[in-house]
Amino acid sequence: MHRREYVHEVLRDAARAEQPEGRAFAPVNIALCKYWGKREEELNLPQCSSLSISLGPLGTETVVRRADAGATEDRVELNGACVDASTPFARRLCAFLDLFRPDPGARFEVSTKNNVPTAAGLASSASGFAALTLALDRLFGWKLAGPPLSQLARLGSGSAARSVYDGFVLWHAGRDPGGADCLAERLPEVWPELRVGILTVCAEAKETGSTGGMNRTAATSVLFREWAERCRVDLQLLRDAIRAGDFTRFGATAEANAMSMHATMLDARPPLLYWRAETVAALHGVRELRDAGTEVYATIDAGPNVKLLFRERDEAGVRGRFPDMDVIAPFRQPRNDSCSPR
Amino acid sequence: MHRREYVHEVLRDAARAEQPEGRAFAPVNIALCKYWGKREEELNLPQCSSLSISLGPLGTETVVRRADAGATEDRVELNGACVDASTPFARRLCAFLDLFRPDPGARFEVSTKNNVPTAAGLASSASGFAALTLALDRLFGWKLAGPPLSQLARLGSGSAARSVYDGFVLWHAGRDPGGADCLAERLPEVWPELRVGILTVCAEAKETGSTGGMNRTAATSVLFREWAERCRVDLQLLRDAIRAGDFTRFGATAEANAMSMHATMLDARPPLLYWRAETVAALHGVRELRDAGTEVYATIDAGPNVKLLFRERDEAGVRGRFPDMDVIAPFRQPRNDSCSPR
Repeated sequence: MHRREYVHEVLRDAARAEQPEGRAFAPVNIALCKYWGKREEELNLPQCSSLSISLGPLGTETVVRRADAGATEDRVELNGACVDASTPFARRLCAFLDLFRPDPGARFEVSTKNNVPTAAGLASSASGFAALTLALDRLFGWKLAGPPLSQLARLGSGSAARSVYDGFVLWHAGRDPGGADCLAERLPEVWPELRVGILTVCAEAKETGSTGGMNRTAATSVLFREWAERCRVDLQLLRDAIRAGDFTRFGATAEANAMSMHATMLDARPPLLYWRAETVAALHGVRELRDAGTEVYATIDAGPNVKLLFRERDEAGVRGRFPDMDVIAPFRQPRNDSCSPR
Repeated sequence: MHRREYVHEVLRDAARAEQPEGRAFAPVNIALCKYWGKREEELNLPQCSSLSISLGPLGTETVVRRADAGATEDRVELNGACVDASTPFARRLCAFLDLFRPDPGARFEVSTKNNVPTAAGLASSASGFAALTLALDRLFGWKLAGPPLSQLARLGSGSAARSVYDGFVLWHAGRDPGGADCLAERLPEVWPELRVGILTVCAEAKETGSTGGMNRTAATSVLFREWAERCRVDLQLLRDAIRAGDFTRFGATAEANAMSMHATMLDARPPLLYWRAETVAALHGVRELRDAGTEVYATIDAGPNVKLLFRERDEAGVRGRFPDMDVIAPFRQPRNDSCSPR
């Protein structure tokens, strides 16, 4: 199925009540059971379901409106500065807007602001495409629920499907080849004491982007054949732990799932090594803290930076070892523009 | 099959001409296609075949003789100092000697010297049990060929099977449940220009020994189910590369195989992380050298230390980046006590 047909299908029963502008915020998210491997490229259908936590106030705010009648190009602004149409950022954004033009000549003005430290290795494309999708929903007055919004956001960036919600989010891989059952939902559980620490261990750009790394892994890793099974087990463990309020199982499973994802990367040919020396130093720091009784776990995406999972009660202990971390309380600092409270 | 019966079988057609003492040297070896996972514990039968390079003059020299008639214990000396019978080192050695006592009361005197820097993470148990096996062969006058010697040495430590030879060594996993076809052979190829650089990045003792790590991986890693297939492919690539004199394919395959072994460790539960920050720093150093045109590859065993593979022509370039490495020329500095020239 093509992307435009997919969008048409998702919007089939949507309302239409266009406004002068649409404005929305969406948070970044970090996966606890990782998204690593696509079953279909064009619709960004993942091989496995994944589970994430949205990072409250960290994310992207976007305003979208129709451009004046004579405009021949979309106008894109990032953090207050105009972005040239030839840049990868603008091209990717405009390709996404192509899916939503009421007529082929329609052009948009998009102004987007990230409050995510860009060097932190947090996926601003996830919050960016989620915020743009939510803003388009408001501009056109679709009044879509979360699941169809997640389906639209996914077309911009896979993990954007999870950024349309606050809190714990489950993105179902689904089975339909046409992606009809590939959507995200918010889980009902709330963990006010959960804290996420962000360690920016290395600000260098990574050598291989996520999609490239995913595809190289899927094409060349022999161990990757078992990754889907690993995720199936871990996802169930995580859901059970979240439901039971079992932080130990939650953290241990999230950390182990991240290690397993990096395992598939190491088995790619040539091997993918996203870690830097500082990454491993942080992992050992986390283990030492745990051995000393401070319960903290680590997760790592396709990059060198480390995110810590711990509870409010342990914040001082964790900060003693990692004084430079940024701390987010995902359930204490929601930005209610995202669609969770609808 | 029990170990003593296995030894009996291997020694069935051996000569017997006991000498006053047996003395032998055996080299350490590093695996290029790794041994990681047993198919049988008691006889140390590996799940997969492996391929190694022996490190010429680095290894263990051992002298063994019969103790005086009245002795009630084996006498064990390591690097000139007497080792107490209650230590793990002496107990493991005496358990191996149990397999070879002509009568239950027979006791031995064993003097063993390692010239391997113990902190270098080189498997001195491999050279140790190989040297002891070769020394016993000389003491008892068995005049065994390499393959049966490798079978005996394996009972002390799996990778000792490979240390009975110099040069490139192939250890066949075999299929026989009784281990009859599990033996090592020396490959005929000689690469005089090959160099092995040893980087001692971290002298701390590792948390989890090789056998414990292997068993935890086999029992808990889902990705490990594909490890045998990974090794089958890599072993063939390495044999082809050695035969063809293709250093690029040789090095790239050895490095990737090591990454894949560590991938299975990361997927263990809880994850096994043998690397330290310095390990990853060295891996990036190796990549930077390659990107700059100096052809060098890395391999890592179940520990934090890194071994480099390069050619004579590149030694200065590699040393520029790794000034503290120890360099071995495996085919230039053989110690001809090992059984290769027989």
